[in-house]
Amino acid sequence: MRIILCGFGIVGQSLARLFESRADDLYAKYALKPRIVGVFDSRGGAADQSGLDPGKLVSAKKKSGSVSDGAPSGVDMIQNIEADVLIETTASNYNDAEPGMTHITTAMKRGMHVISVNKGPLALAFPSLMELATYNRVLLKFSGTVGGGTPILDYAKNSLRGERITSFSGILNGTTNYILSNMASGLSFEEALDDAKQKGYVEADESLDLDGLDAAAKLVILANWIMGMKVTMPDIECTGIRRVTAKDIDAAAKKRCAVKLVASCDGRLQVGPREIADDDPLCVNGTLNAISFTSEHSGTQTIIGKGAGGMETASSILRDLLEIRQEIAG
Amino acid sequence: MRIILCGFGIVGQSLARLFESRADDLYAKYALKPRIVGVFDSRGGAADQSGLDPGKLVSAKKKSGSVSDGAPSGVDMIQNIEADVLIETTASNYNDAEPGMTHITTAMKRGMHVISVNKGPLALAFPSLMELATYNRVLLKFSGTVGGGTPILDYAKNSLRGERITSFSGILNGTTNYILSNMASGLSFEEALDDAKQKGYVEADESLDLDGLDAAAKLVILANWIMGMKVTMPDIECTGIRRVTAKDIDAAAKKRCAVKLVASCDGRLQVGPREIADDDPLCVNGTLNAISFTSEHSGTQTIIGKGAGGMETASSILRDLLEIRQEIAG
Repeated sequence: MRIILCGFGIVGQSLARLFESRADDLYAKYALKPRIVGVFDSRGGAADQSGLDPGKLVSAKKKSGSVSDGAPSGVDMIQNIEADVLIETTASNYNDAEPGMTHITTAMKRGMHVISVNKGPLALAFPSLMELATYNRVLLKFSGTVGGGTPILDYAKNSLRGERITSFSGILNGTTNYILSNMASGLSFEEALDDAKQKGYVEADESLDLDGLDAAAKLVILANWIMGMKVTMPDIECTGIRRVTAKDIDAAAKKRCAVKLVASCDGRLQVGPREIADDDPLCVNGTLNAISFTSEHSGTQTIIGKGAGGMETASSILRDLLEIRQEIAG
Repeated sequence: MRIILCGFGIVGQSLARLFESRADDLYAKYALKPRIVGVFDSRGGAADQSGLDPGKLVSAKKKSGSVSDGAPSGVDMIQNIEADVLIETTASNYNDAEPGMTHITTAMKRGMHVISVNKGPLALAFPSLMELATYNRVLLKFSGTVGGGTPILDYAKNSLRGERITSFSGILNGTTNYILSNMASGLSFEEALDDAKQKGYVEADESLDLDGLDAAAKLVILANWIMGMKVTMPDIECTGIRRVTAKDIDAAAKKRCAVKLVASCDGRLQVGPREIADDDPLCVNGTLNAISFTSEHSGTQTIIGKGAGGMETASSILRDLLEIRQEIAG
């Protein structure tokens, strides 16, 4: 399977490592032979129709800061290289979703299937991207956009098939959960934020975490995919955690509750700080993510896992690849 | 789809209600038209090749205590009625797994697909039942045996496909979890057991819950289905909760832990009381079930939900039916 990989940050490099370490197993078990025919980062591209060596790409990136070997990059690469699947891993941007949006639409128009872990294009244009995929008869997959390596979207869509999910709510941003958990242990907002920054948990643009944009983007994806809604970012009522005070957290603790940034779909689509009972399975601490689905006949079910991480997200891309492999073979 | 329903207790009646309330939706969305052509309980059977009225069956059971209209029941019915799927809901028995075992094997030999929520036959003979299904080219499904309406088996098998699950551990018996949770709130074992009995949470044979047999049966099913092992009940090292004392629970609490009956697969297959940290997502209270899967690349993921209940288990049967529908159509 010929792959163009957009972006070669932590996720892209983890994916390259996964392709290398699991090559035999993927071929033996799933007849999947992933071949990276093109890859680019912000400084340039590398291409080889017979397949680039994943290990050498990681070494080159480590050594020189880029995979570039002078090949065209960005849209130029996507327009000129033959591939079956485009994997989009550049940074999420909720203003115009670029450059991811152009990467994805260009690839689909050329008949490539797309796997995106970039949330921007889906958050701003989920309904029209799905239409474009249908029109071009390609598959658009995005398992890694919600829950990182925890297959939340697949669980709700497939494991609960035949059920009617009536509502859901989740802690979908690990960074704010880490900050709020530390505030509950006595740190001020500023101290907790500094600690999270030092640990590398905060996005370069901290607003994506603190103002709830990352959680809102995930809510858009869930609402479209799980509930069949046709919504985008402006449909979310979104409040971040900047105004949460030690006093709010103490008041919650007295009621055996914790303040969490909750994304919910229950008639309304909302992201905001809310009190959750300590003994609610949803009430997880640290950088964990959690989501509770309530369905008509099976009650409320909660899934908890790490919501981020390079290797975790790469493993979700691999699941999407296997699904594409299976669907185009069938 | 013609169905023989073995047993008409809480699960069977919930399933009949589900067929009735969702008839239009199941047909429109999944082209599924379930038709109960035969049903029996301990007092006799009812049969009609054109399909029995689910609502009338529930009324008859309520009124007279049985669905019997004089039709043959048990193996006699299975041998004499044409059907596509047999649904086995009689009580689990870990001595010889009867009568469920004979129902299932008879149906498979006649070419019927089987859905079992009865754990006995699977716990005692999982590997050979799967072989019998393969030999007879029928499907054997059992989603409701672990987690009730919470699709634990499907999650591990499908949502995590492409991943290597390396170990798992779970709280798989809601009754003992309820008892242990109440002991943590100060009740003695006897008081907590009495309370659970009054609430109807304890099996007629209390040993199934208290001595860990129910949890062990679920562990057998998980080990076979998820880990590809070929094991049965005697392979489980099993200890129940009868010897857990208030002292044990206090000692755990001092370490910010709770004592839970944990079923685990980590090289060894074990069921027994163990201390779990309060802030571990696995540490759920009341009658909830929880299971944590650890996989090679996606970290540890926990699913929490109600592990029992008539309607919940009926919804898992419906999921199995939809899967059979899909697989035989494809």
